[in-house]
Amino acid sequence: MPSDLERIEERIDDLVREYLAVSDTEIASSCRQVLHAVAAQAVTSSQGGKRLRARLALAAFDAANTDADADVPHTSNARDAMTDLSCAIEVFQTAALVHDDIIDDSDLRRGKPSAHRALAQQTHSESIGRGLGLMLGDILATVSISIANAAASSLSHPDTLRAVFLGMQRDVSVGQVLDLSVELTPLDDPARLADASLNVFRWKTASYTTMAPLQLGLTAAGTDPRFAELLAHRIGEPLGVAFQLADDLLDVIGYTKNTGKPVGGDIKEGKRSVLLADALALSSPSDRNDLIAMYEAPSRNTQQVQRGIEIFTSSGAVERSRERIRTLWGQARQAIADTELPQTARDGLLEACRTFIPDSCL
Amino acid sequence: MPSDLERIEERIDDLVREYLAVSDTEIASSCRQVLHAVAAQAVTSSQGGKRLRARLALAAFDAANTDADADVPHTSNARDAMTDLSCAIEVFQTAALVHDDIIDDSDLRRGKPSAHRALAQQTHSESIGRGLGLMLGDILATVSISIANAAASSLSHPDTLRAVFLGMQRDVSVGQVLDLSVELTPLDDPARLADASLNVFRWKTASYTTMAPLQLGLTAAGTDPRFAELLAHRIGEPLGVAFQLADDLLDVIGYTKNTGKPVGGDIKEGKRSVLLADALALSSPSDRNDLIAMYEAPSRNTQQVQRGIEIFTSSGAVERSRERIRTLWGQARQAIADTELPQTARDGLLEACRTFIPDSCL
Repeated sequence: MPSDLERIEERIDDLVREYLAVSDTEIASSCRQVLHAVAAQAVTSSQGGKRLRARLALAAFDAANTDADADVPHTSNARDAMTDLSCAIEVFQTAALVHDDIIDDSDLRRGKPSAHRALAQQTHSESIGRGLGLMLGDILATVSISIANAAASSLSHPDTLRAVFLGMQRDVSVGQVLDLSVELTPLDDPARLADASLNVFRWKTASYTTMAPLQLGLTAAGTDPRFAELLAHRIGEPLGVAFQLADDLLDVIGYTKNTGKPVGGDIKEGKRSVLLADALALSSPSDRNDLIAMYEAPSRNTQQVQRGIEIFTSSGAVERSRERIRTLWGQARQAIADTELPQTARDGLLEACRTFIPDSCL
Repeated sequence: MPSDLERIEERIDDLVREYLAVSDTEIASSCRQVLHAVAAQAVTSSQGGKRLRARLALAAFDAANTDADADVPHTSNARDAMTDLSCAIEVFQTAALVHDDIIDDSDLRRGKPSAHRALAQQTHSESIGRGLGLMLGDILATVSISIANAAASSLSHPDTLRAVFLGMQRDVSVGQVLDLSVELTPLDDPARLADASLNVFRWKTASYTTMAPLQLGLTAAGTDPRFAELLAHRIGEPLGVAFQLADDLLDVIGYTKNTGKPVGGDIKEGKRSVLLADALALSSPSDRNDLIAMYEAPSRNTQQVQRGIEIFTSSGAVERSRERIRTLWGQARQAIADTELPQTARDGLLEACRTFIPDSCL
């Protein structure tokens, strides 16, 4: 029997192909090639990833499904619908990443060319590639909602599920706006920068990584929607923020294999982060001045990236991030322990949540 | 009593503000200013426009609402919900235009700075302005679906309405992909270019301008969904294509006041269009070579734009577009006449459809 992960991967592929299909007879012959390229890129961009979000949504569904209060019987049909709803979260993530890569002008994603870059190569035009990438993101976002809407009809509280899914999309876009605004934040007030960065993590990452998957899974299994929202908030907000802190920390302490990104990539890009805020707050005046000069420059070379990693470590910022992650993970764990779910359900939920925090970050 | 247009304008403003509202307490203080700027731009970008699409959707609803087959009674509550659903189409249009302006790098929209330009001015950064504009488009698209979903619950066939609304969004994005692919079409085969451009009109314009408004209005009033789809297709496809042909024609024959755009703007941008295809097919070899050279150049000056307008007129391409518009409008009118709706309903529908074709283009 295939694992959840295999089922998710296969189903995403099927769903993306199904919802993107347009009959060739409705398309002028000279336009077909480009449309096929975009559809093929949709499939390619949707592949890979650890599917942590889909698996968390399914784990939340399974945990709450043991609840005797569930107001509809959950047959294997319902779990299939929940699998589709979980896949919809992943398809939305792909949509968000496609737009993210355009905003950040990133060439790579999961070790392959980013969508707009791949499409630029195929059309021999930067601007057409970027336009096609922008539309691919729009199409995948719309498709993710279509998948979610259809799945919701076979689950508990369908109207709530649809609203939560749309709220998640809005929140991630708001988070991206906040992220761009942080780029305009001056570096002379580390506490303010740390606050702003943590706020971005809640909106841009926790929203769709942990909060929405938990809320959707719990609600779909018949949990009272207000209770599901509260629980998803209590567990998902600290867990999602810890996940993003860990992601940023891995960028500095290594583990390229896990993230598929080169070490120090965030420093190279000059990304304003909690790690940077902590380093600015904790470092010596001379190191601080070095950091500020480095981050205010338009770009950073390999030597400067190395120097950045050194300051992040020597200042205690790396250790401070570990502390932050431990504290937040403790809060998430406590929130799970405090739920009134049966022990086996809490164990399942805890196990799924634990996968968001790499051992090396605790 | 306020007119439909006044009600639509006011309601769009209310809905955009309501769905974009995020409590300041949830946003880090240093990020609030940029988020407020994006929210204010959402309201500004949503203002103006003739609201042809919303009014067509309402007219279709009113026309079908006299049908004795309607399976739910349509109180003033239902018409309020239909007004919201109609507003959702307009909010989606704004979202699409915000992304369109990024793709085309347009500075102006409805006589004001385009969204990404306005946001670039406020943040003193081209790249951040473009990123914020991209997100604003994403947010407005999501918000339009939230508005449509909520409205659908108080109307007939809510699941169909939701699916049609999402299908519309997907089709417009597909149309934008086709539009970009036409930019890659060589100019040596005018018939192929005309086919491709007309195909773009069906997907990028007719889809959300006439087909979806008709289908949503008819379905929401209780018309059998398959019949509503068929009717919307028969009336809406020729009407929407004629509307886009008229829009392109106005760009050449003047009437700046009506479109808010300078005469010859499409020629200046080098936009590949049905008019261009017809001019290439109908002009003398020397004029054709002039046109090809002009459109293959990276830009066109005022004198060249004037020369383009002259060739479009002297070749007979302008008259050919009028013929195309007359034929398509005839098809739409016939499709309305062929419906089994009562005479008053057909009259109402005909009047609403007629507003899409300016007198000067027939």
